[in-house]
Amino acid sequence: MLKATIDAEIFRESIDAIAALVTECRLHTEEDMLVTRAVDTANVAMVSLELKSTAFDAYSATAGELGLDIAKMKNILGMMGRGDALTLNLLDEERKLELAFKGYKYSITLLDASTIRKDPSPPTIELPGKAVISGSALNNAIKAAAVISDKIALGIDPDAMTFYMEAEGDTDHIKLALGEDELVALNPVGARSLFSLDYLKDMGKVMAKADEVEVNLGVDHPVKFAFDIADGNGRVEYLLAPRIEAD
Amino acid sequence: MLKATIDAEIFRESIDAIAALVTECRLHTEEDMLVTRAVDTANVAMVSLELKSTAFDAYSATAGELGLDIAKMKNILGMMGRGDALTLNLLDEERKLELAFKGYKYSITLLDASTIRKDPSPPTIELPGKAVISGSALNNAIKAAAVISDKIALGIDPDAMTFYMEAEGDTDHIKLALGEDELVALNPVGARSLFSLDYLKDMGKVMAKADEVEVNLGVDHPVKFAFDIADGNGRVEYLLAPRIEAD
Amino acid sequence: MLKATIDAEIFRESIDAIAALVTECRLHTEEDMLVTRAVDTANVAMVSLELKSTAFDAYSATAGELGLDIAKMKNILGMMGRGDALTLNLLDEERKLELAFKGYKYSITLLDASTIRKDPSPPTIELPGKAVISGSALNNAIKAAAVISDKIALGIDPDAMTFYMEAEGDTDHIKLALGEDELVALNPVGARSLFSLDYLKDMGKVMAKADEVEVNLGVDHPVKFAFDIADGNGRVEYLLAPRIEAD
Repeated sequence: MLKATIDAEIFRESIDAIAALVTECRLHTEEDMLVTRAVDTANVAMVSLELKSTAFDAYSATAGELGLDIAKMKNILGMMGRGDALTLNLLDEERKLELAFKGYKYSITLLDASTIRKDPSPPTIELPGKAVISGSALNNAIKAAAVISDKIALGIDPDAMTFYMEAEGDTDHIKLALGEDELVALNPVGARSLFSLDYLKDMGKVMAKADEVEVNLGVDHPVKFAFDIADGNGRVEYLLAPRIEAD
Repeated sequence: MLKATIDAEIFRESIDAIAALVTECRLHTEEDMLVTRAVDTANVAMVSLELKSTAFDAYSATAGELGLDIAKMKNILGMMGRGDALTLNLLDEERKLELAFKGYKYSITLLDASTIRKDPSPPTIELPGKAVISGSALNNAIKAAAVISDKIALGIDPDAMTFYMEAEGDTDHIKLALGEDELVALNPVGARSLFSLDYLKDMGKVMAKADEVEVNLGVDHPVKFAFDIADGNGRVEYLLAPRIEAD
Repeated sequence: MLKATIDAEIFRESIDAIAALVTECRLHTEEDMLVTRAVDTANVAMVSLELKSTAFDAYSATAGELGLDIAKMKNILGMMGRGDALTLNLLDEERKLELAFKGYKYSITLLDASTIRKDPSPPTIELPGKAVISGSALNNAIKAAAVISDKIALGIDPDAMTFYMEAEGDTDHIKLALGEDELVALNPVGARSLFSLDYLKDMGKVMAKADEVEVNLGVDHPVKFAFDIADGNGRVEYLLAPRIEAD
């Protein structure tokens, strides 16, 4: 059971964060929040999202699982304006989700959750390096690297006390090094791993809206990005596997 | 004979209304107005347009018929700015139309009117249901329905006192019901017909600019949309044939 | 040797002016300016650009030649914002150019200048007709002509005291005639030549930003456009060969 009302813009922001990685997912309704965790088809990236009941104007739910066509949701939410109140309501023995806003009633047949990949287990990895940076600066760096390469190295240099991003093209090279002045916070543990820009570009567009993104890094380990949504009433985490650095 | 001056923006608005349905038409010059009536190539939709001499800064014409390449006119008018004065002038024994604005003189060879489909007769149909709605709300509803289907039902529910639009996708459903509070006017006679969204999307873009659109409906009958252009000095009517509702 | 700092927007403007015609060029560093002169692959158009040391916040250079991939530079500069300070620095015995802005360091391997076409000699042609016009008016006229044709005639009518542009389509014709009131200056010597709009459209986009463009014309001769960049601390000249006017 789910019946909830929320600013359409906030719900769209949540769906967009998921849509950066997957086209469908299992959305779990819990008594005090909506939760999803999904892995992309290539098993390279994972998104976790929590949207607390406090993000909603009204929220009432029991434990359940909804199979969501994220791509379709993104289309429908694209038509709503900021400030529109959106009401979500499970119908027909939980087989349909109704989205109501203004005079509109959208009724969407849910996917059979059993046909969607199982939720991944939360990985247990140690990522000792940490930098906190504005989402727009992070997204700009990703876009800058994408001009000359399809891979980017993210790292922390404890001697220089910098968080850096570095990309290597056939003939060109770009490096962005940010010191403590330009970072919100830095945990200066040596770290460096290489990542595919394909994934980062999609994540970057979502992260660009976040005031602060926590970046967790290790040596040849995944990177974890974590940031708030819904004015602090929700949280998104992206986990991205590293690529092998070729010589 | 035609020699007339008009705000380029107003003339563009008129040409755009025609261009939503046809790429060429017969434009009739009359002593006190320009008039056109044209049917699309599939015989599904009709546009009628009247632009009164009062819409012009200067207007002088005798009865005549011009074969207009509407698509080309749309291109040329696209370059003019709001507030530019546009002068129309028939040249060369009425075989060329000159468009002058600022220092520019565009001379367009007219189409041979005899090669363009004859004007359709004005249809005589009874459409007892009527709702008056803002053009932008109407266009938004058309776009919302287009996300999930290629057909939309428009209707009036006299019991609920609502004008409604409803679309059915393979697995999804959308309904927008507007009560008297959200309408400019409603004539609550039961009506419902199904229409192709292909046509409505093009009409919707034009109607979006109108403050009020009068929608006339019957049961499995065409729909007629009527709205003012040129600050009330012109009027456009669209007529669209219904589609058969499949079971 | 080159080490210089400049507003990123001004440098981008200079690169864009070159990029309208060529994808690579030889950039000459001189003690008091940067200079380039390049011809397009079809030998139809030439660009000359001077950017004086006064356009820079800091400038220090010795005579030298850099092989620049203009298309790549345009991409990289596209990411910088107005007001960002950009530092140019030759590295590695002049084989790499480093672009630094904010925390970023872009290092670009220069092209081997010997693989780039030799600089063209400055042509010695007499173009007695001259009109000075705003860049945006010039660009608008080019776009208007492009709607109906792929060629445009530029000319000066000394009797009417006008600078004019004229294009002929299969069935249509456009003429823009600008009198002394609408021009910054006019040297009324009879002139008329025909040009390809393909080239002019690309030049037009660059010239649109110039307050004044000096247009020099002859009879069936090339046209020369000259305009300031960098707040008067730089100058661009475009030279475009005429096409034969077919009867």
